[in-house]
Amino acid sequence: MIDITLPDGSKRQFEAGVTGYDIAASISEGLARNALAVRVDGEVRDLHRPIDNSAALEILTWNDDAGKNTFWHSSAHLLAEALEALYPGVKFGIGPPIENGFYYDVDLGEGRSISPDDYAAIEQKMLELAKNKSRYERRAVPKAEAVAYFQEKGDEYKLDLLEGLEDGTITFYTQGNFTDLCRGPHIPDTSNIKAAKVLNIAGAYWRGDEKNKQLTRIYAITFPKDKELKEYLHKLEEARKRDHRKLGKELELFAFSEKVGAGLPLWLPKGTALRERLEQFMRRAQVKAGYLPVVTPHIGSKELYVTSGHYEKYGADSFQPIKTPNPGEEFFLKPMNCPHHCEIYKTKPRSYRDLPLRLAEFGTVYRYEQSGELHGLTRVRGFTQDDAHIFCRPDQVKEEFIKVIDLVLYVFRALGFEDYTAQISLRDPENKQKYIGSDENWAAAESAIQEAAVERGLRTVTELGEAAFYGPKLDFMVRDALGRKWQLGTIQVDYNLPERFELEYVAPDNSRQRPVMLHRAPFGSLERFVAVLIEHCAGNFPLWLAPEQFVVLPISEKYHGYARQVQEQLMQADLRGTTDERDERIGRKIRDAEMQKIPYLLVVGEKEADNGIVSVRRHGEGDLGSMPIDAFIRNFQEQVEEVMSGRVVRV
Amino acid sequence: MIDITLPDGSKRQFEAGVTGYDIAASISEGLARNALAVRVDGEVRDLHRPIDNSAALEILTWNDDAGKNTFWHSSAHLLAEALEALYPGVKFGIGPPIENGFYYDVDLGEGRSISPDDYAAIEQKMLELAKNKSRYERRAVPKAEAVAYFQEKGDEYKLDLLEGLEDGTITFYTQGNFTDLCRGPHIPDTSNIKAAKVLNIAGAYWRGDEKNKQLTRIYAITFPKDKELKEYLHKLEEARKRDHRKLGKELELFAFSEKVGAGLPLWLPKGTALRERLEQFMRRAQVKAGYLPVVTPHIGSKELYVTSGHYEKYGADSFQPIKTPNPGEEFFLKPMNCPHHCEIYKTKPRSYRDLPLRLAEFGTVYRYEQSGELHGLTRVRGFTQDDAHIFCRPDQVKEEFIKVIDLVLYVFRALGFEDYTAQISLRDPENKQKYIGSDENWAAAESAIQEAAVERGLRTVTELGEAAFYGPKLDFMVRDALGRKWQLGTIQVDYNLPERFELEYVAPDNSRQRPVMLHRAPFGSLERFVAVLIEHCAGNFPLWLAPEQFVVLPISEKYHGYARQVQEQLMQADLRGTTDERDERIGRKIRDAEMQKIPYLLVVGEKEADNGIVSVRRHGEGDLGSMPIDAFIRNFQEQVEEVMSGRVVRV
Repeated sequence: MIDITLPDGSKRQFEAGVTGYDIAASISEGLARNALAVRVDGEVRDLHRPIDNSAALEILTWNDDAGKNTFWHSSAHLLAEALEALYPGVKFGIGPPIENGFYYDVDLGEGRSISPDDYAAIEQKMLELAKNKSRYERRAVPKAEAVAYFQEKGDEYKLDLLEGLEDGTITFYTQGNFTDLCRGPHIPDTSNIKAAKVLNIAGAYWRGDEKNKQLTRIYAITFPKDKELKEYLHKLEEARKRDHRKLGKELELFAFSEKVGAGLPLWLPKGTALRERLEQFMRRAQVKAGYLPVVTPHIGSKELYVTSGHYEKYGADSFQPIKTPNPGEEFFLKPMNCPHHCEIYKTKPRSYRDLPLRLAEFGTVYRYEQSGELHGLTRVRGFTQDDAHIFCRPDQVKEEFIKVIDLVLYVFRALGFEDYTAQISLRDPENKQKYIGSDENWAAAESAIQEAAVERGLRTVTELGEAAFYGPKLDFMVRDALGRKWQLGTIQVDYNLPERFELEYVAPDNSRQRPVMLHRAPFGSLERFVAVLIEHCAGNFPLWLAPEQFVVLPISEKYHGYARQVQEQLMQADLRGTTDERDERIGRKIRDAEMQKIPYLLVVGEKEADNGIVSVRRHGEGDLGSMPIDAFIRNFQEQVEEVMSGRVVRV
Repeated sequence: MIDITLPDGSKRQFEAGVTGYDIAASISEGLARNALAVRVDGEVRDLHRPIDNSAALEILTWNDDAGKNTFWHSSAHLLAEALEALYPGVKFGIGPPIENGFYYDVDLGEGRSISPDDYAAIEQKMLELAKNKSRYERRAVPKAEAVAYFQEKGDEYKLDLLEGLEDGTITFYTQGNFTDLCRGPHIPDTSNIKAAKVLNIAGAYWRGDEKNKQLTRIYAITFPKDKELKEYLHKLEEARKRDHRKLGKELELFAFSEKVGAGLPLWLPKGTALRERLEQFMRRAQVKAGYLPVVTPHIGSKELYVTSGHYEKYGADSFQPIKTPNPGEEFFLKPMNCPHHCEIYKTKPRSYRDLPLRLAEFGTVYRYEQSGELHGLTRVRGFTQDDAHIFCRPDQVKEEFIKVIDLVLYVFRALGFEDYTAQISLRDPENKQKYIGSDENWAAAESAIQEAAVERGLRTVTELGEAAFYGPKLDFMVRDALGRKWQLGTIQVDYNLPERFELEYVAPDNSRQRPVMLHRAPFGSLERFVAVLIEHCAGNFPLWLAPEQFVVLPISEKYHGYARQVQEQLMQADLRGTTDERDERIGRKIRDAEMQKIPYLLVVGEKEADNGIVSVRRHGEGDLGSMPIDAFIRNFQEQVEEVMSGRVVRV
């Protein structure tokens, strides 16, 4: 008999040789039906593989990442079986699961290729084979036998893979007519695969080496239910429609110019309006939270970065230094704002009574990225951090942490991000020598962070060893409207820079003490945040953020004068918008304005001009009837003011 | 008989050999008394030198720059006479008039020096000699005689100067006991010199060459009235007290750090508050005037500047290019924002209906200056322009010019600059080939500027040949509270960049046309503007701009709680300020706050805490009595709102 410990800590006894499936069945019939694999003492294994020793055990289903992984890995074998049926003689490279689905690299053979027209046939064949309920059979194979098998099949890629493997460690998996060299694990049989979709194809060099032959990489995804595939495809389509690069162009928010340089966004007027609103919102929130805005230059001398320690890290993969007519003088584009803020700290003596000192700056920083790694606004070479550095006494760390958490959550709520988690990164307790700062300070800071997170009810995961060498940190992850996770705000404790810059404050006993420094950026960067926001709300920005808040639509040229008068009056009241004076029918003007996702459409014609009123349409809601201009402005301002004052979220 | 034409155009006849003095006397006795020199056909001459031919003539007095110049030049000779009396054997270099006064470079002889303690004796001797009413006698001297004179005197510097002169062109001037080698002209005699002040001394190499001997440069100034000297010294003292570098430090507005780099200001919290307010004020004014804010990066690729033409001008005296890991790729710190804005113009096709397009950016630019040329915030290596570029049709230039003038004047008025003039710079009509752009466009733009200036009633001077090669311009000069002139805002027409960037718009006839571009910056740069503003208002900023608008002063620790509550309430209403919780007497707290030039001092004690009120003191005005907090806020906000809305200037 062996002891099986289940995830809830309970123990059960089974005869040696019992399978994961048996154990699942002993718990419930449903669990057995949904079981895809089993985790035994941390190792994922086939559900039907006998278990010989006492172990901790977890039944894996579609709801577990490891379950999904196994499902998709097995689906890659199914894809291969289908391809072999459709393209006899096809040879196979590797076929792993990935974040969403799986791929298989294949050599179709001279003169054969796959196009999107062929996808349906492949999907159909996969589902047809899946219905056979073929079991994934595991078999240990001597190396010689494995080599003989693939020699006979003529698959040079598998033979190449075999070369790197040791005899005695080789296993084959067979389902239906297809046998693959594979370590597993796999799902029990093909019957769980109920929906399949080939997503796209791409070229991929064998072993990623461009000297090798280019294979065809076929990306696909499968699901245990057809409904899930439909949902996935819908989400994919939604993500495509919400792509911030696409919407950024359509809504004229930002642009890139080759002449200015890749990865250096030009913020167009509408994007700038959005960005300025975000800045203003944050500035206001920060000033009320006791932050002091500062402005520092975008370059700093070599000496500054020698002091901060960044200089040693400037490598050949960075922006290179800026020389001047003065020999030996060198400046660097600033990659972060902290060294400049340390110099501001040093402009005068500080007392314990002056702390915390919270210096905030919307600081634009520059970091070189390879052009291939650039991506819209999420990966750029220049970006503006909503940065701040809090210089405080060690005993103030927890209180400051709580205040920053409150600020971050206020921002998230105001922008409609309601699903967020936090990761706390602590030092590796086994490797204390890797970190700078005293044990006492680390212990205090780590428990301060943890207590702060608990007090504010954050859902957190804690990672040991993930702290920076100079201090522990807390990162926020938000989930957007499509369920995708984004790392946004961050709070970082730093014992290093105060040391390097020799920062001091005078303590009550007149001794000189080192302050602690907190780095924090609720948005992270304006660029990244705007990108996430665009994708989150699909360009339908909250009213207070919308770059164009209204458009006046005269029904004909006769009312252009009145339309402009309305626009002028709204702009005097600080509303942002334009008048559509194109020679188009009103229906077309309304349609175009809806496409532009403008919140308020104000239609004006004879009735409106005669009575000093506007007919109001709200984007996505339709006709709200007509009202005097003043009333519209008042209503509008009330909506915005409620958000800006923090009383209400997300208008 | 000869004809003398006076400045008013009238002609009078005199006998040949008449002097300027005679002519002045023939006009009025007062003019003759105040006459210092005379301008004959453009050449300034001694008042008593005979005039032999018909000529245009102008009598010069203390009120003319040329009159002042002559007065100070003659005073330099008087200083020399005084020095010769006090320091026998002293040798003389050169002694010219300068913007404010004059100097003389002297070699006092081995072991002798002058210190501030000696100034009074020198001044006294000058005035004593001046009372002799010595005439400045002009005499043409053969070179041999001149050489012999200075050889005998043993003055090697004058001999050195004589070497460069041709026989027949040499004149001596003698007054009292002093004779100098000098071209003149001079005032009639020393009696007009009624007040003298030695200002300071400095070292100066003979002929400015550090290989030569270092002489003592004595700076001094003289006046025809003692009262004028007093006024001048007062102004000098005021200027010293208002020096923005001194006030910037005392009021904690900005700082420099060697590690960050010379000429790269760090804006401290109070300076940032001021700067942000200015930005916000300008942003609001600009948005209402139809400008569209944009944001662009602080670097641009080499290609951008090759296109703009700036690349050819990047020399060894500039910030050098930023290389990257990508060979051949180079970026430059942007020295101006226009090329980036041209690229924004090009992000989509523009129609004549889209123009004018007014792109505005608070763009920080970087330009290398030698460290010796840096000066506080007025000469820096990085500064933020309140920049905008207006892309318009040629027929829109005048209207746009008028709008920019209106904006500039609005800004000047709101900030209390009430004395301003404008310089219009046109092309040199004799050298049209030096300029780019068609004759027709130049004619249109030049008359547009002139008409705009007339329509807005500007006091202007027009300079031919001062236009840039790419277009005419208009510069604003303001006079500050001390009467000093500063060049601030500028408006520049540009035909060059639209050409180089191949900017186009579609005209009503569907043809492609080139827009005209206007560059304009009402402040010039935030740095320079803040410097001028500090000196103009001596740090007593208008209420809406003041970095700290209030300070709460609890009369003892017992009222700290209430004081903080007051501060909190004011900050929630967007007022900026702090609480002075130092353990000091209330008198000291009030004095310190007055030193800091904080507009409102709110004293709180028992009476105030019990009644929820504050006792208000206004900087420079004193006690305003006590009032409820709400009433104070309301009153405050009304004052600020009136300026921000443009209804009232300068609170």
